[in-house]
Amino acid sequence: MTQQTTTDDTTRRVQPPRDPAVSVVADPDVLTTALDALGAIVDECVLAVGEDGVSVEAMDPATVAMVSLDLDADAFDAFDVDTDRRLGVPLERLRDVVGIADAGQPVELAFDAETRHLHVQVGELAYSLALVDPEAIRSPPDRVDLADQYASSATLDGASLARAVDAADMVADHLALGAEDDHLHVRADGDTDSVEIEFPAADCAALDAPEPVESLFSLQYLASVTSATPGDRPVDLRFGDEAPIEAAFDVADGDGRVAFVVSPRMTRA
Amino acid sequence: MTQQTTTDDTTRRVQPPRDPAVSVVADPDVLTTALDALGAIVDECVLAVGEDGVSVEAMDPATVAMVSLDLDADAFDAFDVDTDRRLGVPLERLRDVVGIADAGQPVELAFDAETRHLHVQVGELAYSLALVDPEAIRSPPDRVDLADQYASSATLDGASLARAVDAADMVADHLALGAEDDHLHVRADGDTDSVEIEFPAADCAALDAPEPVESLFSLQYLASVTSATPGDRPVDLRFGDEAPIEAAFDVADGDGRVAFVVSPRMTRA
Amino acid sequence: MTQQTTTDDTTRRVQPPRDPAVSVVADPDVLTTALDALGAIVDECVLAVGEDGVSVEAMDPATVAMVSLDLDADAFDAFDVDTDRRLGVPLERLRDVVGIADAGQPVELAFDAETRHLHVQVGELAYSLALVDPEAIRSPPDRVDLADQYASSATLDGASLARAVDAADMVADHLALGAEDDHLHVRADGDTDSVEIEFPAADCAALDAPEPVESLFSLQYLASVTSATPGDRPVDLRFGDEAPIEAAFDVADGDGRVAFVVSPRMTRA
Repeated sequence: MTQQTTTDDTTRRVQPPRDPAVSVVADPDVLTTALDALGAIVDECVLAVGEDGVSVEAMDPATVAMVSLDLDADAFDAFDVDTDRRLGVPLERLRDVVGIADAGQPVELAFDAETRHLHVQVGELAYSLALVDPEAIRSPPDRVDLADQYASSATLDGASLARAVDAADMVADHLALGAEDDHLHVRADGDTDSVEIEFPAADCAALDAPEPVESLFSLQYLASVTSATPGDRPVDLRFGDEAPIEAAFDVADGDGRVAFVVSPRMTRA
Repeated sequence: MTQQTTTDDTTRRVQPPRDPAVSVVADPDVLTTALDALGAIVDECVLAVGEDGVSVEAMDPATVAMVSLDLDADAFDAFDVDTDRRLGVPLERLRDVVGIADAGQPVELAFDAETRHLHVQVGELAYSLALVDPEAIRSPPDRVDLADQYASSATLDGASLARAVDAADMVADHLALGAEDDHLHVRADGDTDSVEIEFPAADCAALDAPEPVESLFSLQYLASVTSATPGDRPVDLRFGDEAPIEAAFDVADGDGRVAFVVSPRMTRA
Repeated sequence: MTQQTTTDDTTRRVQPPRDPAVSVVADPDVLTTALDALGAIVDECVLAVGEDGVSVEAMDPATVAMVSLDLDADAFDAFDVDTDRRLGVPLERLRDVVGIADAGQPVELAFDAETRHLHVQVGELAYSLALVDPEAIRSPPDRVDLADQYASSATLDGASLARAVDAADMVADHLALGAEDDHLHVRADGDTDSVEIEFPAADCAALDAPEPVESLFSLQYLASVTSATPGDRPVDLRFGDEAPIEAAFDVADGDGRVAFVVSPRMTRA
């Protein structure tokens, strides 16, 4: 009633680093929202950590969608960073560990610069996560200022946006999103059926569309974005005519921000 | 950061027909109950729409089970029909759209006779559903009056009936349903195990079995029927000796009615 | 609208045995907890039924894990046994039938020695379960007294134990469980990540570890054990240094007891 094994490596302790280069405490809800957003676009990313907070820029391998994350030091319950650091994070594994925390249970993260491991402490649980070499993670291209392409903007709640994208997904693999002065619309045309969701200005928290605009997007990308967007808060959209769309929302009560950008599909050759 | 596509067809609006041949408003719960019942037996069916309401007769391809639906004009919140119409409906697609409605949120249906599209409006969402040519849908055979085969009848709640069918499904692929003067029974014999569920007359809302009867049915069909039967309301059964079984229940507080009929498996050559 | 079938065997009644050799009534929650525990280790087992109650010993085919169950006669609402009996039970089928009972609805079990069927009555449902020949079920080896291998013991709630095992499962396929005088620990080392869960003595209902001990276990077996261990009650652990682990808990408010034993993986040749 015994089994043989050759491993004898389970006696080392999982201990927090003695002199961590980065040591922060965060609410699990803030972390999961941030990690879900990043994970919707990439598998791994580089966290730039400095004394002011954490920021991430990442682009999907097909270069269709980008995500940026900014978390101010105030977004954390405790924040102690010795110098600027770049951490290569395997998103799904960190997400799994953070997912163990109960609602409101603080999550402690400590980076050991020597071993390049991230120590995660959740209650009685200590997890040592091997980080990825940040040089091995593809850098996103330099950020292009898209402000002049965004002719229009609107704000609506995440749940409404998700519902519109889900409805479009019933009939087609791409959708058109646009606005006129008095409404925002999402439209999709399949082989047989069509669907249109119209949000009158009165149903939007904000709408600014000086002239009619519309762009076509891949549903695959928009569905990834909306599935990683909390339904319970306002989402700020910026868009234009055959232009990218930006969808941004607050995390940590405004001490953090997530922004997705999805490129349009070209509609005229 | 752009993708090419050859489609340029997403600019047309999804608008309700200007002069709809049929225009009704219904509660989503009434529609989903009706569509689930029809969808348990067929993929597509013909809705006969007239000034008095809507009716459907459909039979499954193996001609073992039938479903009929009657919805009076009173079952709708609004009902406006110009003349008798036959609409060929793809059930699952319409069910998906109606499923978007929140509980109690009215669903507007408008039939455009010119384009043969059904326009569905749920809140801010407009869906244009391509109907099927009713001539391309197999007609059920003429309705046969089965009243003289129904020697017995009983009424019990949908949840009890479903539980009996589920229990039978644990041991066999067919079940016997019958009654004597003081009880209704469901019995199934598998290769090793047997199960019997007995409903005494006192547990039935009604039971009329002047003489012992029993018939054998395919569990596959009965399970489809019970899974599309709401558990929260009485189901009226009519059955006999080696005879079909009818299971019927009200929808829309009695302004509508669904009836399933399942043929028996023959037990004597 | 008819189907042919050659079977004509659905007319026999599923009736309780007239003179059952064993006749008991039990709470469904007691039965499902007991059956889930047995089912975590084996597919079939032999229930030894006597006037004092029911007991089971079973070992998994790979001889890595054992389960024992004792249910006193007092664990049942009614208990009537004519003489010692050995019943060969197909666990999953009996579990399915018992699962039909609503919470608190009594389950009646009656064994017909002549037909070797177990009659199960749950409300209006009667189920006749063909038992397995007890001689055809592999006997567990004689019970070895492991008491001198258990240098340590601890008590913690089932949910905490399950959480520790689930966390270990994120990184590896085996885990180390051990204790020192002031804490119990679970540790797992994967190819890249490590996890450790530490329960201080203050978080345990009891802890007795006179000297440091640790043993290595297969996660596959421990996960089966914790998934069949209710989270809502204390689990008594006994373990040692490169020794088996026993996890035991009460059922039926202490009138019954389940104990699992899992062998360690050998770590030194």
